[in-house]
Amino acid sequence: MSDIFAQTKAKFHLPKGVIYLDGNSLGPLPKAAMGVVERTIQDEWGEMLITGWNKAGWINKPSEIGDRIGKLIGAPAGSVVMGDTLSIKVYQALASALELNPDRKVVLSDKGNFPSDLYIADGLLKSLGDEYELRVVAPEEVENALTDDVAVMMITEVDYRTGRKHDMKALTEKAHANGILTIWDLAHSAGALPVDLAGCNADFAVGCTYKYLNGGPGAPAFIYVADKHKDAARPALSGWMGHEAPFAFDLDYRAAPGIERMRVGTPPIIALSVLEASMDIWDMVEMNAVRERSIELCDLFIDEVERLCPQLQLGSPREGKRRGSQVSFHFENGYAAMQALIANGVIGDFRAPDMMRFGFTPLYVDHDDVRGAAAILGTIINEKVWDDPKYQRRSKVT
Amino acid sequence: MSDIFAQTKAKFHLPKGVIYLDGNSLGPLPKAAMGVVERTIQDEWGEMLITGWNKAGWINKPSEIGDRIGKLIGAPAGSVVMGDTLSIKVYQALASALELNPDRKVVLSDKGNFPSDLYIADGLLKSLGDEYELRVVAPEEVENALTDDVAVMMITEVDYRTGRKHDMKALTEKAHANGILTIWDLAHSAGALPVDLAGCNADFAVGCTYKYLNGGPGAPAFIYVADKHKDAARPALSGWMGHEAPFAFDLDYRAAPGIERMRVGTPPIIALSVLEASMDIWDMVEMNAVRERSIELCDLFIDEVERLCPQLQLGSPREGKRRGSQVSFHFENGYAAMQALIANGVIGDFRAPDMMRFGFTPLYVDHDDVRGAAAILGTIINEKVWDDPKYQRRSKVT
Repeated sequence: MSDIFAQTKAKFHLPKGVIYLDGNSLGPLPKAAMGVVERTIQDEWGEMLITGWNKAGWINKPSEIGDRIGKLIGAPAGSVVMGDTLSIKVYQALASALELNPDRKVVLSDKGNFPSDLYIADGLLKSLGDEYELRVVAPEEVENALTDDVAVMMITEVDYRTGRKHDMKALTEKAHANGILTIWDLAHSAGALPVDLAGCNADFAVGCTYKYLNGGPGAPAFIYVADKHKDAARPALSGWMGHEAPFAFDLDYRAAPGIERMRVGTPPIIALSVLEASMDIWDMVEMNAVRERSIELCDLFIDEVERLCPQLQLGSPREGKRRGSQVSFHFENGYAAMQALIANGVIGDFRAPDMMRFGFTPLYVDHDDVRGAAAILGTIINEKVWDDPKYQRRSKVT
Repeated sequence: MSDIFAQTKAKFHLPKGVIYLDGNSLGPLPKAAMGVVERTIQDEWGEMLITGWNKAGWINKPSEIGDRIGKLIGAPAGSVVMGDTLSIKVYQALASALELNPDRKVVLSDKGNFPSDLYIADGLLKSLGDEYELRVVAPEEVENALTDDVAVMMITEVDYRTGRKHDMKALTEKAHANGILTIWDLAHSAGALPVDLAGCNADFAVGCTYKYLNGGPGAPAFIYVADKHKDAARPALSGWMGHEAPFAFDLDYRAAPGIERMRVGTPPIIALSVLEASMDIWDMVEMNAVRERSIELCDLFIDEVERLCPQLQLGSPREGKRRGSQVSFHFENGYAAMQALIANGVIGDFRAPDMMRFGFTPLYVDHDDVRGAAAILGTIINEKVWDDPKYQRRSKVT
């Protein structure tokens, strides 16, 4: 078939001899990125110096790129802005959401949330005072835990380990019916599957851009605020770039109208420029086609691995629509097996205690990659390649 | 004379026909930066993908570069870490400092502080509750305002408009004598003059790296925490990179020992790599020599401008040791005069209501630049070049 994904794959640099199944952790390098960065550094910073803020339009990059990401997550123009890291954006969203629901003091999350989100919530609530509570339940208990003492439900749509996907529309509806505001972490959703923030009436959403969005190591994060909250949310991190008139240098803070108030400090221009190259690739595809292909690739991998390695146990939902764009398997010697796999050219990752995790990213992973990866995994498992001492755990960074 | 500063000047890209006196706002491009970025993007991100976090040592960059900046500001190894923006670092420092002095509720700052610091303090105190107060006095009143109800003195050492320099040692001593913790914003100090954080017993310090440290637009910020507070300060922004064991993915937060706890989210690797090129230049010079040259250049500029343009009134302290590395002049038509100056190849900047601001950065500005800039300014003022309608204010970004 005429394949748009062959065209997108050609837009990425992929090292020779590597099948990359860890784009859910760090996406690969868009070939055009270096050119954009060179232009930003040499033609803009180098030649324009301070005047680049206006001449090269740096000052508007956080909103411009935010709008481009917005298209991938069902967010209208003017509702997403870039900056900082995902952890900081979680803090902003939670601080604002709690103030918008002042009579309640409970934040509901689940054990499938990425730990940093829980850490950030814990840190914020400690600052706010003893009357606040972080309530963390099992992912399958979230729906029943939407009780009328909860102020904010803060969860990650797709579980970073298993790929299990929450039902954003249903949970948001039930949350609202019980007077609860919602914060959706889209770390494993943005660029992985269709997201319809506005259609689901999500209140806040946050995400990173170094996974499926291919922005590079430590790329900037984004925050979404629903139209109805945009002018009401008080920014707890009230930096000058979120001021109504940053260059008036007034002594008093007045929040900018709309999403701009969620900007904090001076934006990271070079890092943002990388995202322009990445967004150009996203402009080539429809998210529904990406999702269809992603489910195909994941299903194929599950079939192949279960056929070749019955020792491994599927750790992800079997039904495609209940997963994100990743598949995990439990294996007792998963750490060593993943090291052996990486040494043999298939890069996935490992999450304690026993989970081998594989991301499937249609922009640059195809059916042949999936079959190839499964075959190599089969060899490693069946011939106990992992049993070599060199693959056993020694680094503290797993 | 054999001049180390001629050697450092050759390390920067400076556009032809431009005298750049705005390095106090955005430093110019180190020629080596593009090479370091290329290596980081192509050889590391491109080839190593996710394994770059260990193989290329990305995970340690925030501390490694922090230590290099530490050398410029009198901070021992292990007391400075990079990340986020200056506004975020102000928030972290202030939140931690207030908790270390829990019986007091007043934050003292001054009107010469960069507004973003005041905005951030205002935002934090609103979150903490009505019992907190942000008390903002005139810069010259800070010393007398160090009363025993003040919890934290949070000031910028060098005024961003006038260049007026606070006495860090004296104010810190008096603060401590009155039971007050100190936060020093070094935005206009780091790389501008010798700073001795440890010698002054400063408690916390923060700064940006896109001004005198030449890290590029929106480069990452730094935070210093004194040895005595490092293991006691609770990080309010408790992200996973500040966790004792980030890759254990525990549900509960436990702060890392020491300065590492002030890390928040995933570090911005590409932006950090630019700083490596910049720090290599800083390794060539002694800060005392930089300071001596900076005072020479500023004094020369003041002499020349006062001789050529008696219409302008000095807005900075006349005595070199009471200034940072910048000089400002009041001029009623300062906005238009600065636009005319920029159009004629001398880049400084303007700060409302009437201040023309010039930064002097010995690494790449020399005596000839100073004389040349003063001569062009003389022509613009004396021949009323600024009176052309094209130089009058229209942009909201000044």
